[in-house]
Amino acid sequence: MAHEDIRALTFDIFGTVVDWYGSIAAEVARIGLPVDGGRLALDWRAGYQPAMQEVRAGALPWTSIDGLHRRILERVLAAHRLALPAADAAALNRVWHRLDPWPDSAPGLARLKRRFITATLSNGNLSLLVNLARHGGLPFDCVLSAELFAHYKPDPEVYLGAARLLDLAPSQVMMVAAHPADLRAAAACGLRTALVPRPRERGPGGAMEPWREGEFDLVADDFIALADRLGA
Amino acid sequence: MAHEDIRALTFDIFGTVVDWYGSIAAEVARIGLPVDGGRLALDWRAGYQPAMQEVRAGALPWTSIDGLHRRILERVLAAHRLALPAADAAALNRVWHRLDPWPDSAPGLARLKRRFITATLSNGNLSLLVNLARHGGLPFDCVLSAELFAHYKPDPEVYLGAARLLDLAPSQVMMVAAHPADLRAAAACGLRTALVPRPRERGPGGAMEPWREGEFDLVADDFIALADRLGA
Repeated sequence: MAHEDIRALTFDIFGTVVDWYGSIAAEVARIGLPVDGGRLALDWRAGYQPAMQEVRAGALPWTSIDGLHRRILERVLAAHRLALPAADAAALNRVWHRLDPWPDSAPGLARLKRRFITATLSNGNLSLLVNLARHGGLPFDCVLSAELFAHYKPDPEVYLGAARLLDLAPSQVMMVAAHPADLRAAAACGLRTALVPRPRERGPGGAMEPWREGEFDLVADDFIALADRLGA
Repeated sequence: MAHEDIRALTFDIFGTVVDWYGSIAAEVARIGLPVDGGRLALDWRAGYQPAMQEVRAGALPWTSIDGLHRRILERVLAAHRLALPAADAAALNRVWHRLDPWPDSAPGLARLKRRFITATLSNGNLSLLVNLARHGGLPFDCVLSAELFAHYKPDPEVYLGAARLLDLAPSQVMMVAAHPADLRAAAACGLRTALVPRPRERGPGGAMEPWREGEFDLVADDFIALADRLGA
């Protein structure tokens, strides 16, 4: 692949840059909730796509991920028969603002930033992404969020909106994600694609979404390998 | 002033963080245009407020600062009886993407970032601001631009939009600028204000817009002094 044309890398965040499963499990243990933290993390995350679909379908008005996470949390707590005071539930909801990055994320981004514009491109709201970047020391050049386009990935408005704001052609932007579906939607908009599989995203028993050999421009084991492959 | 409530600092860019006058004068000399570079910089910048007013009044559709700068440049070149091939004019227009910061900007921002969320809040388009931050090594946590709100400062949509995206009350955000008019508009939206006078903004003969003692929450000579005053 010719990398010379690529000017910017846009990064999926949850699962690709940060470890939501491990971070939430650790938070649940820290606050002493009587539930398996990994189970709660998986249940919480499982509500994510359906909640965005409610927004996409117009059943819910535009609602930030903070708002969607909170709605899902209420349901998950009820399903686990856990009662939590509102202030404690609000504090737990903020765990998504302080998820820990994978070990290679910050050093890999620092290398990639030397050669490419690096931007988040996440369904997380802007304030959440700013807090995650500060928490993890993630050196993004700019924070782009679905919130800016009032559309959630994989809607094309998000990928095309990012290219437009960066004043680049879609083909000058490479989407980096651990999720084949995200990359397929980006490719359909003309972006380049790099898969960074994160087999531990869903914890010990988790499985990756399948993908086909050659389906993406690049597949790299982590952000250091990605920097190697892109000559950064 | 109680600084404890302030969570984010939003920065005006042209003149406050970067030296447009000196950078443009140097570029004009570098490319050998037969004109006084400082004069051309002042004339170019003088077209800026009227051009934004055309957008505000609806005489022009939403046009990015790159687009406005280019329109103004054509007029300025004509006024100076300078003919420039289109590609050279386009390249000169990009000087606004590589303006040099004032010497205190990057080190001051690095200190301020330790305690506060730091964001641009400029009329410059997002891609321009990303390029400026990369050029000057300016460690902003996020890049906010008038472009995100399709309104130019001093329209209230810009200040209120920034607070909304940061998920903060206006009173938790402090606008930092060298321009009293920018700060007055921010204060009218409920933001806190810090004036950092840049007496050299318009070159040797330039004058600052006047302001009244006590009009702003803080007045600091540069970003290092601002960090001192804010305990960062």
